[in-house]
Amino acid sequence: MHADPENTVVSAGFSGALRLLGPVLRARGVRTVAVEPYGLDLYRGLLENAGLTTTALAYDGLGTEPSPLGTEGAVLLTPAHQFPMGLPLHPDRRAAVVDWARRTGALVLEDDYDGEFRYDRQPVGALQGLDPDRVVYLGTASKSLAPGIRLGWMVLPPDLAEEVTAAKGHSDTVGVLEQLTLAEFLTSGAYDRQVRSARLRYRRRRDALAAAVADRAPGVRVTGIAAGLHAVLRLPPGTEPAVIQAAAWQGLALHGLSYYRHPKSTAEHLDALVVGYGTPSDSAWPAALEALCRVLP
Amino acid sequence: MHADPENTVVSAGFSGALRLLGPVLRARGVRTVAVEPYGLDLYRGLLENAGLTTTALAYDGLGTEPSPLGTEGAVLLTPAHQFPMGLPLHPDRRAAVVDWARRTGALVLEDDYDGEFRYDRQPVGALQGLDPDRVVYLGTASKSLAPGIRLGWMVLPPDLAEEVTAAKGHSDTVGVLEQLTLAEFLTSGAYDRQVRSARLRYRRRRDALAAAVADRAPGVRVTGIAAGLHAVLRLPPGTEPAVIQAAAWQGLALHGLSYYRHPKSTAEHLDALVVGYGTPSDSAWPAALEALCRVLP
Repeated sequence: MHADPENTVVSAGFSGALRLLGPVLRARGVRTVAVEPYGLDLYRGLLENAGLTTTALAYDGLGTEPSPLGTEGAVLLTPAHQFPMGLPLHPDRRAAVVDWARRTGALVLEDDYDGEFRYDRQPVGALQGLDPDRVVYLGTASKSLAPGIRLGWMVLPPDLAEEVTAAKGHSDTVGVLEQLTLAEFLTSGAYDRQVRSARLRYRRRRDALAAAVADRAPGVRVTGIAAGLHAVLRLPPGTEPAVIQAAAWQGLALHGLSYYRHPKSTAEHLDALVVGYGTPSDSAWPAALEALCRVLP
Repeated sequence: MHADPENTVVSAGFSGALRLLGPVLRARGVRTVAVEPYGLDLYRGLLENAGLTTTALAYDGLGTEPSPLGTEGAVLLTPAHQFPMGLPLHPDRRAAVVDWARRTGALVLEDDYDGEFRYDRQPVGALQGLDPDRVVYLGTASKSLAPGIRLGWMVLPPDLAEEVTAAKGHSDTVGVLEQLTLAEFLTSGAYDRQVRSARLRYRRRRDALAAAVADRAPGVRVTGIAAGLHAVLRLPPGTEPAVIQAAAWQGLALHGLSYYRHPKSTAEHLDALVVGYGTPSDSAWPAALEALCRVLP
């Protein structure tokens, strides 16, 4: 993250950032925002509430495929770790997206929802570093601390920072107590310790999940890079709905990959489970993992 | 406040409520919102950001005059204590506004920004009590606790509650810690104690302000009912700009009434100071009051 305080706007989480950005993009004349073929309908909905249309990019073995980008005014991406598919944006494609934005005057919205949690290597730099004038960096404390704290931040190109600040008006959208507490948490070093400790904990969970699946469900494959708080489990074709239902009977609230699919996406259908392993308490985690293994084909 | 949890939506203060309501009103086909001739441009701006136009009502010796209401889809009012003028909405006009809303299908947005703070008598009931199907009640903890906490709430007609909840999406706009803390604060009785103690403190400040002005500046009149955290000081004609400037030199950040005037208002110009007496610390208050008295004509 390359943060200049003047170009940084604090928001009520990532969704609060989209609530502020959507109307500003609309006022700039943007009508269409390209999004990844898999993602959260919540975010698509917030863009659509602002009068924007979303279109789905393609997806292949290298992750999101941005080459069909044309006259869209913006693209929303999860470059460090595609949500939920789990691949980072390929280096050639990182360059291509920024090049498209420069050529057409469009903006790239970089959703760095879990960038603190990469387990196998150093995280790749923010896409924003390639062109701070065309890329909006969007960070959040939802994964490092808790989603209920509702703290996110945008690092914006200077002209856009002015427009977003104006749209925000003179009233804060986020409680000042949280902002001051986070500032103290950051400067005291406690935030770094929290992230390191959480990283270790989530890494162990991911390793345990991968080991259990390899051992108990050889027909299922854990995909995506070793990062974040979720994994995608590829299932044998046609089994996704039955596995979701069996999981519900075991008390596991899971979504299949189809839940995250953009309604206009033309990507090939893949049967898969999206497993968030960050939520269970330490005491509930072993039983949750065991229940998951029981329902895998 | 007549709160049914199902029809109540928590917001990031009053401005957070307008951010949610504006686009919902627009989507319902509302194009124009009538507002009081005096008020905060911040709120007019938030409505205008949502694509709504604001028009100014008239004002006379009885307060806001709602009779010219016509085809506007909504009206935003401070019925308990007009901000900043300081009068409550006259009973006949309360009835007339609700009658207009019923007749035309419009909505009344009741901004109860300081309803906990009435010093001379029991506060009048919420306008919402007259017709919960046509009046949106908007409450806030900004005056009773602190504006930085960013906690407000809307009590909505059921159909509108559904639309606002849908527009809010599945992510909270307010930190969960604040919400849980306020809930605990309310149920424990501590909130009531805080309001009673604040009411006594602000009442003493208002009394001290009124006594000091009567004593030191007989040409100035404190207007409005004994309520809230601000008073309007009527000045001799033509003196407002010079008094504001003299106050600035004394380190007092004050606005004149002209600052709060709707740009399209046709109300007669009145020279006045709007004095917020809630902000100074107890130790700073006597010097602030003394400085104010020095600059009054």
